[in-house]
Amino acid sequence: MAEKRTDLALEARESFPHNHVEVQGVILEKHYCREGKAKITRVEIKDDAGSKAMKKPKGTYITIESDLFLQEEEDREPLLLCICEQLEKMIHGMKQKSVLIVGLGNREVTSDSLGPKMTEHLFITRHLEKELGKDFMRKNEYGCVSAIAPGVMAQTGMEASELLEGVVKKTKPDLVIVIDALAARSVKRLCTTVQITNTGIAPGAGVGNRRKELTKKTLGVPVVAIGVPTVVDAETIIGDHLEHVLEKQGYSEQEIEQFLCEILTSDTENVMVTPKNIDASVGRISKDLADILNHCFQKKG
Amino acid sequence: MAEKRTDLALEARESFPHNHVEVQGVILEKHYCREGKAKITRVEIKDDAGSKAMKKPKGTYITIESDLFLQEEEDREPLLLCICEQLEKMIHGMKQKSVLIVGLGNREVTSDSLGPKMTEHLFITRHLEKELGKDFMRKNEYGCVSAIAPGVMAQTGMEASELLEGVVKKTKPDLVIVIDALAARSVKRLCTTVQITNTGIAPGAGVGNRRKELTKKTLGVPVVAIGVPTVVDAETIIGDHLEHVLEKQGYSEQEIEQFLCEILTSDTENVMVTPKNIDASVGRISKDLADILNHCFQKKG
Amino acid sequence: MAEKRTDLALEARESFPHNHVEVQGVILEKHYCREGKAKITRVEIKDDAGSKAMKKPKGTYITIESDLFLQEEEDREPLLLCICEQLEKMIHGMKQKSVLIVGLGNREVTSDSLGPKMTEHLFITRHLEKELGKDFMRKNEYGCVSAIAPGVMAQTGMEASELLEGVVKKTKPDLVIVIDALAARSVKRLCTTVQITNTGIAPGAGVGNRRKELTKKTLGVPVVAIGVPTVVDAETIIGDHLEHVLEKQGYSEQEIEQFLCEILTSDTENVMVTPKNIDASVGRISKDLADILNHCFQKKG
Amino acid sequence: MAEKRTDLALEARESFPHNHVEVQGVILEKHYCREGKAKITRVEIKDDAGSKAMKKPKGTYITIESDLFLQEEEDREPLLLCICEQLEKMIHGMKQKSVLIVGLGNREVTSDSLGPKMTEHLFITRHLEKELGKDFMRKNEYGCVSAIAPGVMAQTGMEASELLEGVVKKTKPDLVIVIDALAARSVKRLCTTVQITNTGIAPGAGVGNRRKELTKKTLGVPVVAIGVPTVVDAETIIGDHLEHVLEKQGYSEQEIEQFLCEILTSDTENVMVTPKNIDASVGRISKDLADILNHCFQKKG
Repeated sequence: MAEKRTDLALEARESFPHNHVEVQGVILEKHYCREGKAKITRVEIKDDAGSKAMKKPKGTYITIESDLFLQEEEDREPLLLCICEQLEKMIHGMKQKSVLIVGLGNREVTSDSLGPKMTEHLFITRHLEKELGKDFMRKNEYGCVSAIAPGVMAQTGMEASELLEGVVKKTKPDLVIVIDALAARSVKRLCTTVQITNTGIAPGAGVGNRRKELTKKTLGVPVVAIGVPTVVDAETIIGDHLEHVLEKQGYSEQEIEQFLCEILTSDTENVMVTPKNIDASVGRISKDLADILNHCFQKKG
Repeated sequence: MAEKRTDLALEARESFPHNHVEVQGVILEKHYCREGKAKITRVEIKDDAGSKAMKKPKGTYITIESDLFLQEEEDREPLLLCICEQLEKMIHGMKQKSVLIVGLGNREVTSDSLGPKMTEHLFITRHLEKELGKDFMRKNEYGCVSAIAPGVMAQTGMEASELLEGVVKKTKPDLVIVIDALAARSVKRLCTTVQITNTGIAPGAGVGNRRKELTKKTLGVPVVAIGVPTVVDAETIIGDHLEHVLEKQGYSEQEIEQFLCEILTSDTENVMVTPKNIDASVGRISKDLADILNHCFQKKG
Repeated sequence: MAEKRTDLALEARESFPHNHVEVQGVILEKHYCREGKAKITRVEIKDDAGSKAMKKPKGTYITIESDLFLQEEEDREPLLLCICEQLEKMIHGMKQKSVLIVGLGNREVTSDSLGPKMTEHLFITRHLEKELGKDFMRKNEYGCVSAIAPGVMAQTGMEASELLEGVVKKTKPDLVIVIDALAARSVKRLCTTVQITNTGIAPGAGVGNRRKELTKKTLGVPVVAIGVPTVVDAETIIGDHLEHVLEKQGYSEQEIEQFLCEILTSDTENVMVTPKNIDASVGRISKDLADILNHCFQKKG
Repeated sequence: MAEKRTDLALEARESFPHNHVEVQGVILEKHYCREGKAKITRVEIKDDAGSKAMKKPKGTYITIESDLFLQEEEDREPLLLCICEQLEKMIHGMKQKSVLIVGLGNREVTSDSLGPKMTEHLFITRHLEKELGKDFMRKNEYGCVSAIAPGVMAQTGMEASELLEGVVKKTKPDLVIVIDALAARSVKRLCTTVQITNTGIAPGAGVGNRRKELTKKTLGVPVVAIGVPTVVDAETIIGDHLEHVLEKQGYSEQEIEQFLCEILTSDTENVMVTPKNIDASVGRISKDLADILNHCFQKKG
């Protein structure tokens, strides 16, 4: 079967033919919060079998889905608090540690600019301790937050991982938080879903197919990734729709795959599907994520 | 059949089932220039029958297709000269008149930002005559060029047409040139094709579905539109691929249409397909178009 | 005396040698609000004599000065409410009318970008009535707000006044609000002062010396201008400091003027003085002004 | 005497009271190139005595001054070639080595955005070798160029030096080129002068007073800095003008210093002087510098 790409563990889990049957090594839990306004799914990949089945690294993946993402500012507040709670659980015990926040992606491509735009709204405080002293920091309950938007290879000639390995080694944060735009499989999840994971960034994730991993293994400190799907691969959307029709016609999996191979050319490889109002969505969500991070790392909980 | 949207007259013409048969009221001519490096297609819609068949206003549509669009700067030069020639033919006799150049679209959406970005590279001279005198203008062979990027309705609350009607009435240019990002039907035409037309902008053209027309009728002066396709509607790409497979299976047009109606939901309505490297392409082409316009309106031919 | 340029009526009034003596035709009133945290000065130029003395058009000029401008978001709130009150007094009875908000200035020059950046944060609703109906507007208590950032002459080849006269005639707002970056005389007023006036924009105001007036006379509807000083002319700051020293040395006004004429060259004409942290200030204030305007025109008072 | 700040070695040299007398340990050479259109000054600080007198590190400082900086593109070409020659002399023998180009400064402050804007126009190739192979690189005569715009502390919480030390250690370029906006003493040098030096960046240089040095000592590889003055400190311009007048009045150095201390307050500390057309100048020069660097590192000499 032609690969259906998704960066969401939730969608990887859904893609198993019999959704209700347990996948070995994978725990799936759902609950609602804020009076049903947000649906929270926890996927935990516990062992190598689960990792292989899901094609994702072992770890915990929290997905928050909600229509509130599309609402106006005052109505989104309960959602933001809900995301904040989930993030705080994920970074348990590290709220008061020094954190490097990384905005991955290409500032010049709207659908990939979520990370860089988020960094513009962060409250940066790491440099203030040296300037204003520890007492000042304590009095204002400032955390130790630094940030970077490393750009993409075509802009820098460097992998984000090279750049970040160097920076982490030099500035020694206790924790790295990576914000990234993701690829989903389903159009209806675009800009309405957040995934938080303690696995860091796996090879091949992100809109622009970042290549090298950003994990505790490569950076030396815990890496929590926050991702929001903003694109669907064109091949995925064409394939999914075709499959849907052909399955109904009684074609076998093999036959369908054959059709797909024939029609998906290099033209469709180089395009992506993105919402028409992507600018407004990315603007709103990048600010929301920065607010969540500011709230999480700047005031005692 | 579900509508296959395209802003290219060339593609509208191709969509007739028997491509080689004449469509009444529509003239089609092709030739190559620059040693075959650019393919030029002239579609002329001569009468109401042609206009109805093509679902486009009467007028001349020139399309220039070339792989050179993707090449480096020095290699693109013959292509730019070729586009310049076609533009000069289209504005025949108005090269030395005063021109208002309009960059339509949304600066914040990469695929729709072609027009606004183009305006940043224009050489603007209309205001210099009052400041520096007619002799200065003549000595430097300056034209009388003004420009505006009117933004989109969500940013201004106004139709581009309202804004431009007011501006044209007040500043009285002899000619309006409108630059716009278009929707194509074929992925392989994205960022590799330019369409020049003397019909102005028809309702529903452009990436963001500009609604009101910008034509000689509404603005009171000739309107030449230069468009470059940067997106394909998601429904169009899904539909085209599905059709391709189902036709081979022997399904009738009606059956295929039925399938399409079932699977194309409101989700697919709100998304668009765009090249992954859209930022680089739009950056390059917006600069190219400005260079062409500067060359066309700033030096005696 | 070499001209000391200021766009603030307050500073024009202060420049009279005996500050406490009445200037004929000019009323001056001061009071504090929000427990002394903001100082409000009302200058009213009542007749031609006052206008000539002040070199400003007849009308009302409200200045709000406060250190709160430099504080964090939650601490600025009382200040914003105070500015909102003053604005509402100025537009008395027009809160529910249709308004065109104009962001003057050059987006590419940080100190002049206040107006264009403000428009990015506005809640635009004029176009929604046609799309969603009058009932929808009434239910949501939406106003009728449109906006434009007309750019500067080097970008458009047009005077802002030409562009706006055309737009106002076509879209017929009841009220125009113009936001502009101003020149002050005193460095300490930069980014800590707001001036609201019902005179519109006079020739020569603004950072980039906008040339044509934007007033009820030229636009046909009331024009309220909101300005924030972001620059001091280099000649003004040099002159003021020199004067200060030379007066102490007992030099006469005439002698001082002589010195100034000698040392102020064309080099100093083409430069301006601006705060080092101008980006942060303009970012913050442009958002604040948009919030004030959204608050003023989007909810029933 | 109140410090007159300049980042230009040329101006530091000029500030010695008797300009024609030799300063010990400092060599000064001038010549013209391109038929007198560009003036080239070479200041060489040879020993500790020279370094102390000049308050700049030992090394070579080349300044190119020319009115051509303000001309149109085709007229600037001889100037760009001239700068290119001087740069190639400075990096003697390293043209074909791998280079990391650093754009220092704050993208959001026009006068400080020269470095970040320059990086947008660079031709980046370091990552292509891994993707396309050594043969491809050789055939196209591509160099090995990477780039970064590290931002400023308020955006990242990190010193540029921390970030760059990490990156250099990890990506191991043979050479670092740093582009920075500088402070000059004379208004007439703004945007009309380039300084190239093999000393790297000294503490306190740059518009925003970058604090830590970027030198061979700190980065471990040769560091060549290219700087263009875009601002004058407000205190410097006020002081220089005042001095000029008061000297003529026969006041002693001590008396003048006394006056200056009295009138220069914290208000004047926080402001800077910058050309009114700074956006156009920075746009043009950032592109020019990128063209020079592309020319220098991408084709065999």
